[in-house]
Amino acid sequence: MPAYSTNMRLKFPILALVLEIITIILFGVFVVYDDGKGHGHDADHHDNNTHKAEPMDLYPMFQDIHVMIFIGFGFLMTFLKRYGFSSVGMNLLLAAFGLQWGLLMQGLWHLDHGKIKVDIFKIINADFSTATVLISFGAVLGKTSPVQLLIMTILEITIFSINEHVVVNILGANDVGASMIIHAYGAYFGLAVARVLYRPGLRNGHDNEGSVYHSDLFAMIGTVFLWMFWPSFNSAIADPGFTQLTAVINTYLSLAACVMSAYAVSSLVEHKGKLDMVHIQNATLAGGVAVGTCADMNIGPFGAMLIGFIAGIISTLGFKYLTPVLASNLGIQDTCGVHNLHGLPGVLGGLSGIVAVALGKKEGSVSHMGSAAMQAIALASSLGFALVGGAVTGLILKLPVWSQPPDQNCFDDALYWEVPAEEEEHEESLAHNKAEV
Amino acid sequence: MPAYSTNMRLKFPILALVLEIITIILFGVFVVYDDGKGHGHDADHHDNNTHKAEPMDLYPMFQDIHVMIFIGFGFLMTFLKRYGFSSVGMNLLLAAFGLQWGLLMQGLWHLDHGKIKVDIFKIINADFSTATVLISFGAVLGKTSPVQLLIMTILEITIFSINEHVVVNILGANDVGASMIIHAYGAYFGLAVARVLYRPGLRNGHDNEGSVYHSDLFAMIGTVFLWMFWPSFNSAIADPGFTQLTAVINTYLSLAACVMSAYAVSSLVEHKGKLDMVHIQNATLAGGVAVGTCADMNIGPFGAMLIGFIAGIISTLGFKYLTPVLASNLGIQDTCGVHNLHGLPGVLGGLSGIVAVALGKKEGSVSHMGSAAMQAIALASSLGFALVGGAVTGLILKLPVWSQPPDQNCFDDALYWEVPAEEEEHEESLAHNKAEV
Amino acid sequence: MPAYSTNMRLKFPILALVLEIITIILFGVFVVYDDGKGHGHDADHHDNNTHKAEPMDLYPMFQDIHVMIFIGFGFLMTFLKRYGFSSVGMNLLLAAFGLQWGLLMQGLWHLDHGKIKVDIFKIINADFSTATVLISFGAVLGKTSPVQLLIMTILEITIFSINEHVVVNILGANDVGASMIIHAYGAYFGLAVARVLYRPGLRNGHDNEGSVYHSDLFAMIGTVFLWMFWPSFNSAIADPGFTQLTAVINTYLSLAACVMSAYAVSSLVEHKGKLDMVHIQNATLAGGVAVGTCADMNIGPFGAMLIGFIAGIISTLGFKYLTPVLASNLGIQDTCGVHNLHGLPGVLGGLSGIVAVALGKKEGSVSHMGSAAMQAIALASSLGFALVGGAVTGLILKLPVWSQPPDQNCFDDALYWEVPAEEEEHEESLAHNKAEV
Repeated sequence: MPAYSTNMRLKFPILALVLEIITIILFGVFVVYDDGKGHGHDADHHDNNTHKAEPMDLYPMFQDIHVMIFIGFGFLMTFLKRYGFSSVGMNLLLAAFGLQWGLLMQGLWHLDHGKIKVDIFKIINADFSTATVLISFGAVLGKTSPVQLLIMTILEITIFSINEHVVVNILGANDVGASMIIHAYGAYFGLAVARVLYRPGLRNGHDNEGSVYHSDLFAMIGTVFLWMFWPSFNSAIADPGFTQLTAVINTYLSLAACVMSAYAVSSLVEHKGKLDMVHIQNATLAGGVAVGTCADMNIGPFGAMLIGFIAGIISTLGFKYLTPVLASNLGIQDTCGVHNLHGLPGVLGGLSGIVAVALGKKEGSVSHMGSAAMQAIALASSLGFALVGGAVTGLILKLPVWSQPPDQNCFDDALYWEVPAEEEEHEESLAHNKAEV
Repeated sequence: MPAYSTNMRLKFPILALVLEIITIILFGVFVVYDDGKGHGHDADHHDNNTHKAEPMDLYPMFQDIHVMIFIGFGFLMTFLKRYGFSSVGMNLLLAAFGLQWGLLMQGLWHLDHGKIKVDIFKIINADFSTATVLISFGAVLGKTSPVQLLIMTILEITIFSINEHVVVNILGANDVGASMIIHAYGAYFGLAVARVLYRPGLRNGHDNEGSVYHSDLFAMIGTVFLWMFWPSFNSAIADPGFTQLTAVINTYLSLAACVMSAYAVSSLVEHKGKLDMVHIQNATLAGGVAVGTCADMNIGPFGAMLIGFIAGIISTLGFKYLTPVLASNLGIQDTCGVHNLHGLPGVLGGLSGIVAVALGKKEGSVSHMGSAAMQAIALASSLGFALVGGAVTGLILKLPVWSQPPDQNCFDDALYWEVPAEEEEHEESLAHNKAEV
Repeated sequence: MPAYSTNMRLKFPILALVLEIITIILFGVFVVYDDGKGHGHDADHHDNNTHKAEPMDLYPMFQDIHVMIFIGFGFLMTFLKRYGFSSVGMNLLLAAFGLQWGLLMQGLWHLDHGKIKVDIFKIINADFSTATVLISFGAVLGKTSPVQLLIMTILEITIFSINEHVVVNILGANDVGASMIIHAYGAYFGLAVARVLYRPGLRNGHDNEGSVYHSDLFAMIGTVFLWMFWPSFNSAIADPGFTQLTAVINTYLSLAACVMSAYAVSSLVEHKGKLDMVHIQNATLAGGVAVGTCADMNIGPFGAMLIGFIAGIISTLGFKYLTPVLASNLGIQDTCGVHNLHGLPGVLGGLSGIVAVALGKKEGSVSHMGSAAMQAIALASSLGFALVGGAVTGLILKLPVWSQPPDQNCFDDALYWEVPAEEEEHEESLAHNKAEV
């Protein structure tokens, strides 16, 4: 691949400016402030109880989720030694654009007199929609250009909003913490893209695909913020009051149990019983993903902890044994191991939801088996949209016009970012010295 | 400048202790807890509507702003390779003293039976007052001693509280997100100080005035926390309810649009279309500054995004083309480029406010053109107090008794901090030991 | 000590898995969601006023405290150059297990029809209980294995819950911000453990027991988050409304005054008046600890600032002069100096509480001198349980079967973690090249 093809000049700025101008125009046509009058379709989500909602009630939860999206996902991916600028920087770009696009796409299904009325509930959902892209970003991290990533954002959020509509409004399935429609969807979408963009040249790994001591600490900032605020993620759109409290407690306890099993299994499978940072950074979060679908159900603190405990085990084992197999045998190069953090635990969450609904743990549900069937269809729908949508997106991204990086420049910020000169000089002197040897 | 003059011993501790003791005495005389009885002048800011305020209602927003002040500003300035201790450490010192001083200075204009009654609203405003100092600190970063900075804090907050009184209480101007009274004021105050303290010896730059890879990542912690919580900054003192919601949504959308234009223009003006960390760390925030004055007005989501979009462009272009000219032609050495993040976008915010008020976007405003004129006078007042106040402050700081750093020790923590010796020695000793083997 | 004894394989995973399975079973037997019906013993803490509590009212404060526990304590301890993985990683493990254990231990004293009903108030207290362990962890940081730390967690939280019951329910003492029952208790417990585990081999220090430039910056993330959210820590379980507001304001102001005195004294006692990062990272927080016991009392803003001011001085002097003496003369090797951050300020807080209660600053207290006596007994109880409990725990941890690190591997992540290979190789290549030159 010739060097000039990675040059973003013109391609990236023009795409970003045109997208933003179109978005602003669409906002001018469709989007107004919520004025508290005449709620539309989503009123039944959060208004049908005795609690009189104030416009700002959900704001603290929104800010927790905002932190998860921008600090959590952004820093979680800084573990690579030479790709921190892209991780936190592209995360900011994709999420900032994605929330605008998500607000439009989700809003189009819920028009109120032809308008999208923005309130805190809607911007929470807009933030949620970006999470799918950030999960998929983890699968293709280091192997895609900013231009490709912007295109993926548009496509993935558009398809997400269709699947969300199917799952929530048509099937009437429960997925309060979005194990299926965000985590499983985002993971399998990203894996499908990664499969289509398979790079044989990276089959034997890459010098830059590893961490250094401090990059692993930066990543822990992301991990811990995700871990702490996950109860907000899983409860923000739950019914207010005791149902929301249940979602908080289930998530809090599931995550705590998950930490214990993730640490235990990490030590069990590693050399000399040592702990592995990759597991700690990721598998400790699997409990939040897996308890998502049934977070607001009456599964009991015991049930929530069991789900988290199992998720921690599955996720750690996935990192250790499954990821290498996917890469070598199926051509799926999953940089951050999103399959283990979002994919498997997301499916576990979907399955738990089916069981919980079948057992009547969801309050107000009439026909248990009918509802359980809807849950199963919702899971299948999420996986189907993800795999087909991801594959189509991958084919589009494969067109050789999006400034994608050549193999040797993968996982390297220097291709798309001005990198401080000290570093390079340092490396040059290293290179120089080695050359002399 | 002889070496001993930078020795802070006695000067700094005595100044800090005396200032704190005086402050504690003043608190003993003037400050009491709010007990909910008999609100004073600021009641009309937040109490005159149907919403019955509880004492802790604003607390979550206060904490968001607290994070912006102490993590946001503190880490944003850690981008310099050898000045991280001072950035985050001096930020903590100046803000911790500044909030006490600000509470006194602002409170003196709103005495209630001779007392300042502290509530969440007042400590939010105290935090706000420190933001002006932290912005100015960015302009003189690396070139001033802790002693100088403490003196600047006293003077800048005192003058700020006068201008705030003029703008809010006398002119009755609107500046809910403080584009004018904090951002423009803080930036031009700092630039005036920097002009007076001009150092010809730094005309050709300084070895330490640059970043390393990980210092740029630390700075991104600051950027992202500022970016996320800016909706709280712009809405905290808005009227509760739907007006506050409007301020949140306008800021959220302005910032999202600003990210897109800042990235696009950064890539457009840089070598080979690469992104520049300086732009990403700063210009992505310009949308929050610029939408401040009219955040609580009915400018429409479309209008907010347009303001953010333009702010991102102006700010990035300022970093690229204006900062070098200010330094070389006008003798204004603006270390962090606060002119581009706070100065220009602050003025843009003030101008947007004039237009928005003239167009009748501010609810409850009677005479549109009269109000617009007050907005214009408020902007002029903020700039005037900033430039004159900053110049006078600069002259005082120029007195050769404040342990200011000599040119060669600028941008270096080692002058005022114990710095770990290990880094370089460590490598050398490693090299040495191995060589012996 | 032979190398194999540090191998955690089997010991650690089995302990962690067994503990978690037992915990899940106990949760299955005892723990249910709060459904708002029939509050038990702790109702008088937060329900007996006109304020009608919603289930989620305390949630934003809970999240602030959650951040202090997981980010605050975790990153504060990353200051060591080679022990960041353990600091933030073990912090996560111990707190995640500790909150489950704490919820059980504290809940057993407040059973409601044989069940522990979980609400936000209870998970705040569960988080609190882990703080004691994290403080003690600071004293033994770098010198203990994960196995030892898990055992310490069980014992320390169990004993904590007994002392808490004595102090709060039997003595009826006031300790809203837990200066005595968390800070003093955690510190002296940890110091007692450290004394029993005294290592003569570390008498002359250790190569790894120091910071590098960026590890000190990581630690400041912890410091600043602790500093900012401390008002939530001290006010979360205060009576809602104006009492809670008082606790917030007292803590906010105490911390601000403490920063000033800590910086001043740091500069006063250091070489050439420089600031020392150890003081800034720790002593700036002493004001939050010391104002804890009387945070919700009517001590006046002036009184709160005075407490903070004194705490900052005592804490800084403790780091400078007391810690070396404790290590050399008493055999107490206190890695993080928790005696200066939690021990001394905690005792100061307890003493302040005695004085404040004697002066009738606690609203609703009937007999001032009787209440003051109860406060004094509460302080003595906390210190007694800490010293005896810590000594016994130390003796158990001393058994040579818990994979404790040999002296030469102290303060080194590589013993229990997979550490990225690049660092060392990198340095080796540097060394190699230099040797050749």
